[in-house]
Formats: sequence, structure tokens, C-alpha cells
Amino acid sequence: MPTVALVRDGVTRLSASTEQHATPRIIVDAFGGDHGPAPVVEGCVAAAREGHTVILVGHEDVVRAELAKYPDATSLPIEVIDATDVIGMDDHAAQAVRAKRGASMNVAMRALKDGRGDAVFSAGNSGAVMASALFTLGRLEGVRRPALAAVIPLLTGRVVIVDAGANADCDADNLIQFAYMGSMYVERMLGVARPRVGLISNGEEPSKGNALVLATHPRLAESTLNFVGNIEGRELAAGHCDVAVCDGFTGNVVLKLAEGVSTLCFNLVRTAIRSRFHYKLAGAVLRPGLVKAGKVLDYAEYGGAPLVGVQGNVFIGHGSSKARAISSGVRTAAVAVKANLIPSMQSAVIASGVER
Amino acid sequence: MPTVALVRDGVTRLSASTEQHATPRIIVDAFGGDHGPAPVVEGCVAAAREGHTVILVGHEDVVRAELAKYPDATSLPIEVIDATDVIGMDDHAAQAVRAKRGASMNVAMRALKDGRGDAVFSAGNSGAVMASALFTLGRLEGVRRPALAAVIPLLTGRVVIVDAGANADCDADNLIQFAYMGSMYVERMLGVARPRVGLISNGEEPSKGNALVLATHPRLAESTLNFVGNIEGRELAAGHCDVAVCDGFTGNVVLKLAEGVSTLCFNLVRTAIRSRFHYKLAGAVLRPGLVKAGKVLDYAEYGGAPLVGVQGNVFIGHGSSKARAISSGVRTAAVAVKANLIPSMQSAVIASGVER
Repeated sequence: MPTVALVRDGVTRLSASTEQHATPRIIVDAFGGDHGPAPVVEGCVAAAREGHTVILVGHEDVVRAELAKYPDATSLPIEVIDATDVIGMDDHAAQAVRAKRGASMNVAMRALKDGRGDAVFSAGNSGAVMASALFTLGRLEGVRRPALAAVIPLLTGRVVIVDAGANADCDADNLIQFAYMGSMYVERMLGVARPRVGLISNGEEPSKGNALVLATHPRLAESTLNFVGNIEGRELAAGHCDVAVCDGFTGNVVLKLAEGVSTLCFNLVRTAIRSRFHYKLAGAVLRPGLVKAGKVLDYAEYGGAPLVGVQGNVFIGHGSSKARAISSGVRTAAVAVKANLIPSMQSAVIASGVER
Repeated sequence: MPTVALVRDGVTRLSASTEQHATPRIIVDAFGGDHGPAPVVEGCVAAAREGHTVILVGHEDVVRAELAKYPDATSLPIEVIDATDVIGMDDHAAQAVRAKRGASMNVAMRALKDGRGDAVFSAGNSGAVMASALFTLGRLEGVRRPALAAVIPLLTGRVVIVDAGANADCDADNLIQFAYMGSMYVERMLGVARPRVGLISNGEEPSKGNALVLATHPRLAESTLNFVGNIEGRELAAGHCDVAVCDGFTGNVVLKLAEGVSTLCFNLVRTAIRSRFHYKLAGAVLRPGLVKAGKVLDYAEYGGAPLVGVQGNVFIGHGSSKARAISSGVRTAAVAVKANLIPSMQSAVIASGVER
């Protein structure tokens, strides 16, 4: 990438580093997330200290004021693109994206489309990020519906859920494409050869499922994917597949429930430890081990969820992302850029054989 | 109930207790479950020792041989009804129920219909138990679809999921009835006044959901129930509602995932404890507290899931039920009989206002 890309109009450079062009430039929506720009900027500063090039998009004065908290920020590969408006977490996704052309996430998408950066990360209103990406970047050739591919961490390994929430109602064609895109994502991003693809269902037998699953199962069974059949909630949590395919309603419920139940379990353990004095002492000894165990399931360690099927690398972060989740998101986006993910995704869509 | 009910033809009495007629008589499918009759009989013996009247249905010789392991069984309120056939966990539900008229669960349902007992509990093939109940007992007046109401234990309290798996595809009328029946179940069985009813969705706003949820939400909002709106997986796990309404596909995935993730979490804690010598020592001190914490989420403590909407008290146990889960199931069924649940359920169905 030519260095000139970094000094285009509207991009204010804070850094004089000449090595930036060699590394992926991650465009980050500074006003995305429940906690405003402070944790976003903090996470980006952390990522930049690791050498990532970050382009922050949002009210320039506010972003600069946040950056000023870090004395080394001026020497880091961080740039700022001004954006005058913000899409809130409660805004109606599609309407807000159309009405607020100058919103930070819209400006971020346009910066990606214009080649000012290589990927977008936003922890903002996820419906709006999706709408903004679709509106500005468009879909890959042949994609019926882009999907959110979210990682659920497990005891050993992890499972990627597609769709984790982009499309509440789906048909079998959608699920077939999700399966191909999810499999490719896991192969390219997590380095798993022939990822095991499961179809989330209410029973493992091919005869079990709702109408959508019953229509999808035989097509996955005949596909070129490494299809391991229907997968139930228990087996999903036990890591019996690398990619779990479902409609976005089911996927979103699954993702949030997994988070809710793991919080519940660690709260139970915490309550148990506090219940007696000698448990408290033992708990203090165990604390580092338990914190480490809790981290295995902590979304903040796992970066953003890619919106697969759009013309560009777009990663969506958890709305409640703190700095650590933001820097994970920047890191994941950078890996996707280095892995040249988009052409692979295009191949996956073609391989799915779903007619446009 | 007249004592004569206990000495009808075909019921072999093992007990001479004259107090049986005062307590609910729970008919138990002795051949239901993954582990055969041994844990079922063990659980029933435990329940009978607490004073519950149990009628075991299955191959009489096998059941008697199991009972003979317990020297006190002859003095307990346990009876046996012979049934020559068994429906396996892998049998096709509806086909097997029709083909094997003499299967233990079919005989159990007929015994309930004939008034030989007051409730049925089976940990067998859940699809087959539902088919058998529908076939033999029929639905309550006005019920479109019976549903499975399963309890998920939480840190404080619990949530009842309806439908937890009886109907993979549902319409809004079904969900409205599930909501009314679930609310009544929680009110009568768990003693919660005006239970909070939530609609499982991929977002809390009324505008979020798949087509089914979008069609159901306004009707629940206008209902006489204490509807608290859409509920996401995190809030579900945090106990924000007492009844969570969904189609049986979603409910089944939720139920099994909750179990899978809690197993995963406790495995993580176990792995952490084993990772270092001083953690092992602390873990040994904490062990009773952690075991107690784990029990909070243990399905075996919570008995069976009622099949609501059929003409009779039918409880379905987890296929992998061991003795403790079986005796919990007997206990729950007895509570339902004492609470006179069926007339309440009929009222709930009428209150739902769904036209037949």
C-alpha cells in the first residue's frame, strides 16, 4: 500500500511513522459502544502500541481530547477522521443509517470503501453497523444475506456461530451460504483445516428440526463441506463442531445465553466462596486460577464478530466492549486483512452453489 | 379417592398400606430412560420411602427383580403393572407409539386414563411420551398444541421455558397458549403470584424478533398476563422473568445449551483447580461449597417437565435421569396432583382467548 493513502484529505495524522503502510490500517468507530469514546480510544492506543495502525472516526475534538490522555499517542500510528454525528444504541438501525449520513459508522464505512483503511471495527448498534456496511459497501457477488459470525469460546477451542444475529428469519439458501462462509472464516482465520460444520437443532437425528433445519440438513449433507450433522446445545458447548449454522434469531439467542449462563455459573462459584470464612481463604488462594478460567469464556479476549458476505472487512464488537475488547477487535480485523479474507469469502460463496 | 382404585385388575399391590389412597398415585414408566429400569426403580423406592405412592409400569419380572434389591420394598406403597414392550430412545416417536400398544409408556398412559393413578412420569423417549399422551389422553378443550414446560434453575429462583421441545414449528396462537399455560403452571406449582412472562427474542425492543415473535409480542402486550416484554439470553439467565415463551425448537436449544454451558463452566473451574498443587489444596477445602453451587444448576434436583395442555398430569424426565432425578420427578408429579393442576390449566387455556 502506498504511503500516500495515509495523507489523503480529511485524515489527520498524529503519527510520523513511515512503517504504517506495511501494516493493515484498521478504521475504528470511536463512538461505537455503550461506554462512549473513552474505552474505544484506550483500546486503540493499546493496539497501536502493539504496532497496529488505527484510524479513529468520530468528533475530532472529543477524540483528540481522549488521545491527549496518553502522552505517547502522538508517536503512535493513530489517525483521526472527523465525523459529526453518532448513531445511538437505541436508534432504529436502518432509519438512522439513512438519516445520519455523517454518523461515525457511516463515515468509517466510506473510508473503507475509499481505500483509506483496510477494515472497519465498530462496537456500536450492531443492526446499524450491518445496515451501514450493506448500504455503503454492498454484498459480495452472489450473497443472498450477509451474516454475523461470532466466536463462542469453549474449554478447548471455540465455535463460530453463523448467523449470530444479522437475519432473524432465514431460508435454506441463506443457511447454506452461512455454512460455506463460516467454514472459510474458520479455515482462514483460525487455521482449522476442513472445519467441522454443525447445524443447530433440537435433536441430533436428521429427522429432528424445525422446517428450516429439515430443509437445510440434506443440502449440507450433500455439500462439499465437512458436515457433521445436527448439533444440540450440549454438544455445541462441548465443542463438537467448529462452525455452528443457524438462523440469526437462534444464533443471537444462543450467543447471549451462553454469555448469560457462564456469568451465572461464575456468580454461583463466587457466592459459594463468600459463604464461609474458610472458603474465602481457599478462594483467595484459587483466585488467579479462577480468573484465568473465567477469561477463557470472556468475549473481551476474542475481538469482534465479522460481518461475512459484505464487500469489505467489517467487524462488530460487543456493545459493552471495554478497552481490552476494543484492542482484541483491532487485532482480529488486522488478522483478517493479512489473511486476505475477502477473496476467500467470495470463493466460498461461489462454492456454495446457491443461485443468485 | 376411593381405596378401591388401588385394587383394580392388573394392578399388583406390593404394599398393604391403607394410607395410599390419601396420597397421589404416581405412575412411573419403569423402562423410560437411557439407563434402563435399575435407576428408575431405585428412584421410585426412594420416593416411596418418603411416602409417595408409586405404580411402576414395565416387564413385571424385571421390575420385581429390581425391587427385590431393596429389602423394605414390600412394605412400601409401590405397585407394579405389567407391560410387555418398550419404546427405545431411538425409536421413531409416533410410529412406535402406534405400533407398540403394549409398550410401558402406552400402558402407563392408559392406566392414568383409567383412573388407576393420578399422574404419569416417564424419562423415556420424550417425543414418544408426548405422542403417547396425546394419543391416549387427548388435549384439554381448546388447546391447539400441548407444550413441554421445563425448569431452568438459576442463581436465585428459576425460569420455566414453554415450549421446551414439543413443537419445532409454532404460530402466534400456539405461543399465546403456551404463555397462559406456563404462567398458570408457575403460579400453581411454584407459588409465584402474577408470574413475569417474557418472550424469548434477539433483542429487548418490541421491534426485535423473527416473524413469529413480531406477531406474538403485541398480543402478549395486550393480554391479561404480566408480560415483561422480549427477553434476551443474558436476561433469561439472570432471572428477569419467571416464564419464558418460545417455539419448541428455540426452547429445546436453550434448555440444552444452558446445561451444556454450565457443564463447561464447572469443567473450567475443575481444570483450574487441578492445574497447580496449591490450587488442589484450596480446591479440597472449597469442594463442599462448589458441589453445593453445582447442585443449584443440576437438573436432577428439579424433577420432570410437565407436558401442559393434555388431559392429565404427564411429566417427562431427562433421558439420562439417575435415581435422584426420578424421585424428584415423582415428587413434582405429586405436587401437581395435590395442586389440582389440570382444571387450572383448562382455565388458563380458556383465558388465552385463542379460538379453537
